[in-house]
Amino acid sequence: MGTATQTAGISPLVTIERVHAARAIAGELGADLLVLTPGSDLRYLTGYHAHAMERLTALAVPRVGEPFLVVPRLEAPMVDASPAGGLGLDVLAWDETDDPFALLAGAATARLGSAPVRVAVGARTWAEHALGVARALPGSALELASPVVDRLRMVKTPAEVEELAAAGAAIDRVHARMADMLRVGRTEAAVGADIAAAILEEGHVAVDFTIVGSGPNGASPHHELSDRTIGAGDVVVVDIGGMTATGYRSDCTRTYVVGGAVPPDVAEWYAVLQAAQAAATAAVRPGVTAEQIDAAARAVIDDAGWGEHFIHRTGHGIGLDTHEAPYIVAGNGIPLEPGMAFSVEPGIYLAGRCGARIEDIVVCTDDGVRTLNDGPRELVELAG
Amino acid sequence: MGTATQTAGISPLVTIERVHAARAIAGELGADLLVLTPGSDLRYLTGYHAHAMERLTALAVPRVGEPFLVVPRLEAPMVDASPAGGLGLDVLAWDETDDPFALLAGAATARLGSAPVRVAVGARTWAEHALGVARALPGSALELASPVVDRLRMVKTPAEVEELAAAGAAIDRVHARMADMLRVGRTEAAVGADIAAAILEEGHVAVDFTIVGSGPNGASPHHELSDRTIGAGDVVVVDIGGMTATGYRSDCTRTYVVGGAVPPDVAEWYAVLQAAQAAATAAVRPGVTAEQIDAAARAVIDDAGWGEHFIHRTGHGIGLDTHEAPYIVAGNGIPLEPGMAFSVEPGIYLAGRCGARIEDIVVCTDDGVRTLNDGPRELVELAG
Repeated sequence: MGTATQTAGISPLVTIERVHAARAIAGELGADLLVLTPGSDLRYLTGYHAHAMERLTALAVPRVGEPFLVVPRLEAPMVDASPAGGLGLDVLAWDETDDPFALLAGAATARLGSAPVRVAVGARTWAEHALGVARALPGSALELASPVVDRLRMVKTPAEVEELAAAGAAIDRVHARMADMLRVGRTEAAVGADIAAAILEEGHVAVDFTIVGSGPNGASPHHELSDRTIGAGDVVVVDIGGMTATGYRSDCTRTYVVGGAVPPDVAEWYAVLQAAQAAATAAVRPGVTAEQIDAAARAVIDDAGWGEHFIHRTGHGIGLDTHEAPYIVAGNGIPLEPGMAFSVEPGIYLAGRCGARIEDIVVCTDDGVRTLNDGPRELVELAG
Repeated sequence: MGTATQTAGISPLVTIERVHAARAIAGELGADLLVLTPGSDLRYLTGYHAHAMERLTALAVPRVGEPFLVVPRLEAPMVDASPAGGLGLDVLAWDETDDPFALLAGAATARLGSAPVRVAVGARTWAEHALGVARALPGSALELASPVVDRLRMVKTPAEVEELAAAGAAIDRVHARMADMLRVGRTEAAVGADIAAAILEEGHVAVDFTIVGSGPNGASPHHELSDRTIGAGDVVVVDIGGMTATGYRSDCTRTYVVGGAVPPDVAEWYAVLQAAQAAATAAVRPGVTAEQIDAAARAVIDDAGWGEHFIHRTGHGIGLDTHEAPYIVAGNGIPLEPGMAFSVEPGIYLAGRCGARIEDIVVCTDDGVRTLNDGPRELVELAG
């Protein structure tokens, strides 16, 4: 069989109001029907945490009328056991030889009084499900539900901020143990395995990623792990994160020097990086745009002459997904609002030599910023 | 940052011929362009194993002209480090503020000599990527690439069958250790944690799922784990699987009785289930259809009067995904071919009481069937 895991931990955070708010925004934006499949959109709106699979599970939210869940009959007991079971949603169960898309289309059309035309599907809904819904609704046009769902998910409630803060504290505890794991003579893979175990020990239920970029590998921002042995004096980028029981994510990067002193030239540009990360964080407050935060980091690095080595955006939103709106990148003019949570993670990368990145998760507050990671941001020297 | 992991282990299995075969089938079926994003389709065709993320990574295969990869510039080094780096594919890297969909659309249109009309996207491609490609190609129509990709992926090469056989042997070793883990007085969650560790110890690099359905929980086929304590005489369904280093999956179910004798009534219908599973397996040979395999299992259970308690399809294909084509279900008239690998897993479920399922992975051979799991299929009594 396939699998779908349940986490009841999120239930205090989820209420039917989220579904009703999505319906109201859909109506405002002119979408006739929202269709959201397993993943963070569904977990956010209903508390039902299911792995995506080929059998259709979907929350359908018509512009008018009652929202409903379409689920494989053999998974209906899991919906009842999840927080979604307490939301009072109609559950339409389908059998193995039924057409779940026809079931969804018929129920939505009945609620709307006519077939939906603008059908908004989750950004991460699989094409086979999105196109299946479209095929069952001839004359409909697909669009993304992101404008509806992101508006809700981007602005964290105080309870959600505390979940992110707990995740941040958990990953900070892993970084605090780095001296025991990141040592000269060990491979990146061995260090990564220790980090993965520590991520679980320190309050996560899943490991999302363990990036250990030593020496030249640190110059590839998404390098994860290799069999490279860490040498004395290596600069090592450690970017790690996991998921807590309620589904919220951690994501924190620190850069270390192992078994040696910081090379003077590295110290020079690392100071620029640290100043850039601090400047971008300090710029966070309501009304400032996402691209202005990116620009605040980039200006410091550009002015110091290292701009060509800062090769990625400054950050990404974080919540039930590690990467979600708002993205902190040139071209994104969205104004920050209290409750928006995102990473501030400028980096400088020297091909063939090494790289460095400093990443904190921050939250926009009513009058400024709250930082959810508080480990030292200096280039940390480990005895090795 | 996000993350993407590399596994070089699959490289001996991947050649550019797979991409060329996909292009030939696309031409035959009239699709102008295939667009495949991170996931098993991309891993199968190129050996590049990347986690899906919001930044577009895609293999584009135009009906004519050279295939190409569109990748975020900061991940280009990971493509080079992967088996895909050895395939000679054009790699078009995009920067953080570029429009990767316009890049893909322009390169495909240049190769085709005109804009593609029929654009086939991966079944599990995210809607934000599928609709992004469609938006960049006005006048195009989206369809699924499954008819192209599944035709290749469904029929395993001898090397792929050996990978599945190794995965099957690994999960059999986990079931062989069940007496040490599945004991009276322990919770399903505790047993599941031990099983997860054993899945990694016995030759997998990731745990896909651990279903431990004890007593009444066994009557919910997709129940995973709970805090229920296993009692003396409980019937327990254990359905577990993982991923090996080369990306191939295991999936095997056995049913146990812990700390007690098999209740006579359970023994009666379990014998029916075992006969059904054997009958479906024995029916596997080239030319027999997927739905005939389902019918072979169902007939035995129906004839014995337990049909209403067999509430799911008989099986699913398996390879780089745990669930893939061909699905062994009524309505699927696809004829089996040598190399097709799938599960045979009938079950009987008594709501409120218990359930039982027997699952093997089998491969259609030139003249019959090869079973890739060989642990005992009887209701196994554990001392508890």
